[in-house]
Amino acid sequence: MKISELSERSGVPVATVKFYIREDMLPRGEAVSATRAEYSDEHLSRLRLIAALADVRGLPLSRVRDILGLIDAPVGDPIETLGRAVGALPPYVDGDRDDYPRARAAIAELGLTYDPDFTAVAQLDEALGALEGAGLDASPAVLRRYADAMTQVARAEIAPVASMPLENAVSYAVLGTALYEPVMLALRRLAHHHLLVERSGD
Amino acid sequence: MKISELSERSGVPVATVKFYIREDMLPRGEAVSATRAEYSDEHLSRLRLIAALADVRGLPLSRVRDILGLIDAPVGDPIETLGRAVGALPPYVDGDRDDYPRARAAIAELGLTYDPDFTAVAQLDEALGALEGAGLDASPAVLRRYADAMTQVARAEIAPVASMPLENAVSYAVLGTALYEPVMLALRRLAHHHLLVERSGD
Repeated sequence: MKISELSERSGVPVATVKFYIREDMLPRGEAVSATRAEYSDEHLSRLRLIAALADVRGLPLSRVRDILGLIDAPVGDPIETLGRAVGALPPYVDGDRDDYPRARAAIAELGLTYDPDFTAVAQLDEALGALEGAGLDASPAVLRRYADAMTQVARAEIAPVASMPLENAVSYAVLGTALYEPVMLALRRLAHHHLLVERSGD
Repeated sequence: MKISELSERSGVPVATVKFYIREDMLPRGEAVSATRAEYSDEHLSRLRLIAALADVRGLPLSRVRDILGLIDAPVGDPIETLGRAVGALPPYVDGDRDDYPRARAAIAELGLTYDPDFTAVAQLDEALGALEGAGLDASPAVLRRYADAMTQVARAEIAPVASMPLENAVSYAVLGTALYEPVMLALRRLAHHHLLVERSGD
């Protein structure tokens, strides 16, 4: 396809497509004449990934680059590659501390296998600190409720990963993590409303 | 308690406490002498609410004010008051459109009662648009999976609301919505990792 079609199908303006090419985030098209390059479906997928991360979720380009780098050159272990890629997604928490006692205690209590370098550990620690600061319940029983719901969701989400080449798995993990988050949070708020209305009618 | 203790117990610097008082977000303490004011547990709760919203979740002060306004002067209907207060939380989506066909179709399919003016409708619409743009699955079956998990979580969350005065319910709904979101999202990422490791050992 021509750059104009690539732009149209991705929803990314031509000038922005050219910017991503100049920045080496998107490969050049195949030159088919002095003035025309041809783009493939791979270009389109990659452009959609960049747009979802940079435009929709507002990631800094340096983080998008980290993710693209892991797609192009995975580190040895697939699970570590996926973890690092997802770790480039927000929220960004202060990674200065090398220990997250609150999160580690909670994760151990929940019986989850975890990698202490995984950013979700730091993110959970910060989130639990916020609950504590606000005087909200962060007891094991309450955390278990959220963990159970998330494990149920996560089980279905990771099912397709087994049959994917790693490159696709990274892209799927990053996009799936980033783009279903707002869906889930909006549905939680809608469920609150639905249940409050239902109860008020009892 | 003195302002210094209020500051210490809330984690909010004294200068910031004074700023919130000047901005009419926090009531003055009761003057007990020419140079000393006494603060109550109500001051502490309100300050914790402001800090959780403004500092932890980064809400603009105008949005924090909207929430405090609803606590101080609820609109007629309790469910509408709660909806408006939660609607002041991020993510902020372009509210120019008065119709959200994608979200409305999805919510109808899920069988949820909803208020079309509720910001979660706009938030869901935007999130579904992002899935579509990235070529991710937004089919009813996938959305049902998320909605079921969120309904399960939401049912436990709204249980205590029935026995609360509306003022406390607004505060609980806003804090609970805002502060458990990052907990849940971190747990989802941790569950992915746990399940990938578990499967790789099979």
